[in-house]
Order: sequence, then C-alpha cells, then structure tokens
Amino acid sequence: MTIEIRADNLAKQGLIMVMTGDGKGKTTAAFGQALRALGHGYRVCIIQFMKGRLYGEVLAIQKYLPDIDLYQYGLDSFVMRDNPAPVDVELARQGLEKAKEVIASGKYDMIILDEINVAMDFKLIPEDDVLALLENKPAEMDIILTGRYATPRILEIADMVSEVREIKHHYSAGVRNQAGIEY
Amino acid sequence: MTIEIRADNLAKQGLIMVMTGDGKGKTTAAFGQALRALGHGYRVCIIQFMKGRLYGEVLAIQKYLPDIDLYQYGLDSFVMRDNPAPVDVELARQGLEKAKEVIASGKYDMIILDEINVAMDFKLIPEDDVLALLENKPAEMDIILTGRYATPRILEIADMVSEVREIKHHYSAGVRNQAGIEY
Repeated sequence: MTIEIRADNLAKQGLIMVMTGDGKGKTTAAFGQALRALGHGYRVCIIQFMKGRLYGEVLAIQKYLPDIDLYQYGLDSFVMRDNPAPVDVELARQGLEKAKEVIASGKYDMIILDEINVAMDFKLIPEDDVLALLENKPAEMDIILTGRYATPRILEIADMVSEVREIKHHYSAGVRNQAGIEY
Repeated sequence: MTIEIRADNLAKQGLIMVMTGDGKGKTTAAFGQALRALGHGYRVCIIQFMKGRLYGEVLAIQKYLPDIDLYQYGLDSFVMRDNPAPVDVELARQGLEKAKEVIASGKYDMIILDEINVAMDFKLIPEDDVLALLENKPAEMDIILTGRYATPRILEIADMVSEVREIKHHYSAGVRNQAGIEY
C-alpha cells in the first residue's frame, strides 16, 4: 500500500500577520496581500479603524473589486492620542464589534484589521478584546493587523511580524501629501 | 491683488520609492500602492523581474484590473545568485528594456519595478543602467523599486525608502508556502 500525501491536500493554516513600524507601506502591504489572496479565490474583508476617508485604495475597491467587503470606522480627521473624542472611541468600538461579527460569520478566508494596532495603543479599544478575538479565530482564517505601535502581546500571538522601518522619507525633503501616494 | 495658491494646483512631484529588507511585505506594498494610485486615476504599469508565475496578485490583476499593465520577465524557478543561467540574464535584460520603453512612452504615471533590486544584486542587469533610467525619468512619474539588497546608490537616489524587517516568520514554525499568502 502506498500512502501519498500531497501538500495541496493539507488543510490551510490560517495565520495572524502583523505589519507594524514607522515606515510607509503597512496598509498598502495589507491591501496588496488582499489582492494576492483574492487572486486565489479568498473571500476577503477589510475593516479600517480610525479612517473615514475615500483613500485611493478604497476608491479602487469600490470601482473594481466588488468581491472585497470593506468597512470604515472612523472620521476623516486625526484622533488625538491623549484625548480621543467620545465619537472616536465609539466608532472604534463599533469596528471591533464588526470584526467579531465577520470573524464569526464564516463568510471570509482573510480579514484585514487596518490600523487596529493604533486603535489599541490609543486605548480606543481594549487589547484584551482583540487578543480574545485572535485566540478564538477559525483555524484556517488569516487575520492581518496593521498600524504602528503593535503591542508586545500582539507580537507574541502573531505568526508573522514585519516591521516597516522608515529609512528615508520625502516629507523630509518638503514633499507634501499627494493623492495616489499617501492616500 | 490677491494671489491664491492652492495645494491641489501644484504640479505632482514624482517620487522614487524603494521597498527593501528581508521581511514579508515588499511586493504586496507595491501592489497596494498601485491599487491606491489606480483609485485616483493613475495609469500604472508593473514590470516583474525574475518572476514568471501566476501569483495571486497577477491573477487578480488579470481578472479585475485591466487598467493595470503588467509584464513578467523571468522563469518560474529560482535564479542562482552566483551562477545565473544565460536565460535569466537575458530575461532581466529584456525587462530593463521594457522599463526604458514604458518610462519613455509617457503612458504611465506610476511604474513598479518589482524585484529589480535583486536583479541588480545578482548582476543580471547593471546598476548604472537602472540609475540612468531613474535620473532621466519624467518629473511627475513615480517609480517604485522592490526587492532585498537595494544598493547604496539606489538608496541615495531614492526619495523614499522603507526597510521591511522580518521580526517573526511562520516559516520558522514549520508553516509551508501557501497560495494567497506567499504567492
């Protein structure tokens, strides 16, 4: 008797992946990962914390990628780290509720929680709640967390962590924010 | 007389951006940047060096994003660093020629040269030729170079450099390559 084990028969191993650090490329890496996953038929959901603006990537998803579901929980303004407005806390709380809902729904293979690291660092949402969510995720589901300031416990639970470091930035040379580059 | 200068009337400042380092997220960040740019109406072209495979991101572009032009110059096999096959050198040379052609064509606002840093490090293409290409690019055009081993002269000419550092990787835990994650 021959037992043949083929790698593509193995169950998918869902991963917790973190993109953190002070450099440019965390959110774009997550969206690029969404595109890669979509190409292989993954069902992808993106939840953005602290963002409420029609970024280029959001416009592109609206126009071209109806198969990706995207939810924003934030205003089109910066949240103050030491003194967030009640509305910022409330929106982040709603984002976390949506994350719980979509993770439990079984409708998705990959879920991106964009800027959730910052939402935790700013104390908009409790780190414990996010950790509980990650600990109880379905085994085959991938979850990607982005944003600066990923906490030590998030780094600990993650399977993959990339730190995007700023080596050089055009802001230092006086180049302003530009559509298509920063947003 | 009042002279009003509005930021959105200023000419676009094209940037040379580099995603390098040993961590996961360089190519996906470039593709996410392409998506962001596309959302704002940029005309985007992607040239992949040393890659000849239907990665998820390539499949997704074929299926959903016909407005992005993508060219691959490589085989579906690894190039040996110290002993590249003549075909690897020839394909990389063709990729560089294509890059010259699309940069000169005026048809694109953003051009992504995926893995070109590795192609230079492996001596498949001359660094001098890439530098000349970057020095003579149209002022408003963005060019993104990805791949490990970006050379000091590439880092010098770049406006923006992010280093993606591997903090933790699931390969260490024995998780294999998976469609939708690595390719």
